[in-house]
Amino acid sequence: MISRDPDELMDAAATGSRTALARLLTYVESGGPNQRAVAARAYAVPAPYVVGLTGPPGAGKSTLTDALISALLARGDLGPVRFDELGVLCVDPSSPFSGGAILGDRIRMQSHATNDAVFIRSMATRGHLGGLSLAVPDALRVLGAAGFALALVETVGVGQMEVDVASAADTTVVVTNPGWGDAMQANKAGLLEVADVFVINKADRAGVAETRRDLEQMLDLGGPYEWRPPILETIATSATGIDSLLEALGAHADFLADGRLEGHRRAQAARELDAVIAASLRARVRELAHGEAYERALEEIVAGRTDPYRAAETLLSEP
Amino acid sequence: MISRDPDELMDAAATGSRTALARLLTYVESGGPNQRAVAARAYAVPAPYVVGLTGPPGAGKSTLTDALISALLARGDLGPVRFDELGVLCVDPSSPFSGGAILGDRIRMQSHATNDAVFIRSMATRGHLGGLSLAVPDALRVLGAAGFALALVETVGVGQMEVDVASAADTTVVVTNPGWGDAMQANKAGLLEVADVFVINKADRAGVAETRRDLEQMLDLGGPYEWRPPILETIATSATGIDSLLEALGAHADFLADGRLEGHRRAQAARELDAVIAASLRARVRELAHGEAYERALEEIVAGRTDPYRAAETLLSEP
Repeated sequence: MISRDPDELMDAAATGSRTALARLLTYVESGGPNQRAVAARAYAVPAPYVVGLTGPPGAGKSTLTDALISALLARGDLGPVRFDELGVLCVDPSSPFSGGAILGDRIRMQSHATNDAVFIRSMATRGHLGGLSLAVPDALRVLGAAGFALALVETVGVGQMEVDVASAADTTVVVTNPGWGDAMQANKAGLLEVADVFVINKADRAGVAETRRDLEQMLDLGGPYEWRPPILETIATSATGIDSLLEALGAHADFLADGRLEGHRRAQAARELDAVIAASLRARVRELAHGEAYERALEEIVAGRTDPYRAAETLLSEP
Repeated sequence: MISRDPDELMDAAATGSRTALARLLTYVESGGPNQRAVAARAYAVPAPYVVGLTGPPGAGKSTLTDALISALLARGDLGPVRFDELGVLCVDPSSPFSGGAILGDRIRMQSHATNDAVFIRSMATRGHLGGLSLAVPDALRVLGAAGFALALVETVGVGQMEVDVASAADTTVVVTNPGWGDAMQANKAGLLEVADVFVINKADRAGVAETRRDLEQMLDLGGPYEWRPPILETIATSATGIDSLLEALGAHADFLADGRLEGHRRAQAARELDAVIAASLRARVRELAHGEAYERALEEIVAGRTDPYRAAETLLSEP
C-alpha cells in the first residue's frame, strides 16, 4: 500500500513512482498541512523548464499539445533543455472541479498515457489557499522534484487566471485561429503581456493572412522588443507546422538561457511570494472575523469605547 | 489663527466652528496620523442619522438634495430624529480629486451656504487608506461629534462604491428617472441591496407609469420584506413631491427606531472594521514587498533554501 507521508511520497516520486507523484499533486490541490510539507520539499529542487499554451476554448490547444508531446518525445530536447520525461498539466480554471475527470478533447492526449516518458494530469483546486495561481507553480515544482526537466501547461484563457498561470511558464504560446482579429484586439494588453510565441492554429481555414496582419500590427504598436514574438502557423490535427513551432520554442529557451532565465525566475518567485502573502492575509481576515476578539472589538466600537482603526490594530497585533 | 491640533479642532467644531470642522474633514480625507487622532475622538460620539441619496449622473440628485435641505430645515425633524443643524456630504467617486472644487450642478445647493444651520462639503479622498468607503463613515462620525444629529450623503452611483457608501447610510434613497427600465434591470441586485426608498424624479416626463411598473415587478421578485421600499414621484426643480418623500424617509426612520437601528449600526461597524482590517493588511503587503527582509526571502526561495509558504510565514511573523 502506498504511503500517505509527503516525504516518503516525494522519495518514491523521485525514483519514478507515478502513483506517488499523483498523490503529491492531489495534496497540492487540496491545501492544508500536506501541501505545506510537499512545498517544503519541492521548492528545494530547481523548477523544470515550463512551456505554457493558452488561448480561448476551441482554439485547438489540446490537439496542439498532443502533437507537441509526440514531437518533443521524438527529439528529447528543447533548445538547451534535455529531458527524459515530459510532464503535462491541463488547467481549466472555468471548471475548478473537473480535475481527474476525463474531458472530451483531452482523450487524444491519453494516447500518450501508456507511455512511461509522459505524465499527464488535469489540475483542479479543491482547497489550496491561493487557488490555481499558486497550485500550478507548486505542481510544477513537484514535477521538478520528481525529476522532470521539461513540463507543458495547457490553460484555457480566462483573463487574469490566464496571466497568472502563464506567468508560471518560461515560454508562453498563445494559440489563435484564423478570423480572430476582433477578439484579439479586445484583449490586446493581456496577449502582449503573456505571449512569447503566437500560433495561428487551424491554418487550413480562410483568414490566415488577415489574422497574421492583425497580430503583426498589434506587435508593431507594442515593443521595442528584446524578443519579438514570432507568429507561426499550424494545423494541429495533421501535425503540420509542429517542427517550426518546436524550433521557435527552442529559440526562445536559448534566448532566456543567455543570462535571462535567472531574472525571469526571480520575478516568478516574487509573484509567488506576493500571492502567498496576500492569500495568507485574506485567510487571516476571515479567521479574525470569526473570533471572540473580533466580537469584543465590535462591541467596543458600537459602545463608542474605541474606533475601527484602533480596534483593527489591536486585532492584528494579537498572536 | 486656527489650530492644527486634532483635539483642539474637535473641541472648536463641537462649539460651532465651521472652519475647524472643515479642517477635520480634510484630515479625514488625507489619511495619516491626524486622521487616526480625529477618528479616535469622532467614534466616541454616536453617529448622526444618515440619509443617503444615490443614482446615476443626471438623475437630478443634487436638485433633489437641495429641495430636501429646504424642506428639512423648515421642519426640524425627520421621523424620530430632531435636529438643529444639517450636514451634507457630496461624494463623487468617479472624480476623486474634485473635493472642494465647485461642481456646476452643486451651485444650487450653495444657496444654503450662507445658512448657519447647513454645512455642505464635497468629499474626496487624497490619502485615506480605505478610500471613500472608509473616509465617508469617518466624515459622518466627525459630523456627529460636531453636534449634527442628521446628515445627508449624496453619491453618484458607480457599482461597488455606491454599495459601500450607501451602507454608511441608515436610509438610502435610489433616484431614478422615467424610462430607465433597462438600466435598472441590469443593476437589479445592486439596487435591491441598497434601496429603502425609490424616487422617480423628473416625474413630469413621459414614462413614469412604465418605470413604476418595472420597479414594482423588480420588488415583487425580491422579498419577502419587513420594509418594502415605497416608490415616490418627484419633480425636484419645482419641489413637487418633496413632502411625501420626507414622510417616507420619516416612516423608514421610525421603522428602524423600533429596535432595528442597533442591529443596523452593529452591521455597519462590522463592515467598517472589516474594511479597516483589509486596508491595513493591503498596506502591510505593500510595505513588506519593499523591505530588506522581503529581498532576503526572495534570495532564499531562488536559491532553493526555502519555499514561498515558509518565507511568507516568516515575513508575516516579524514585528
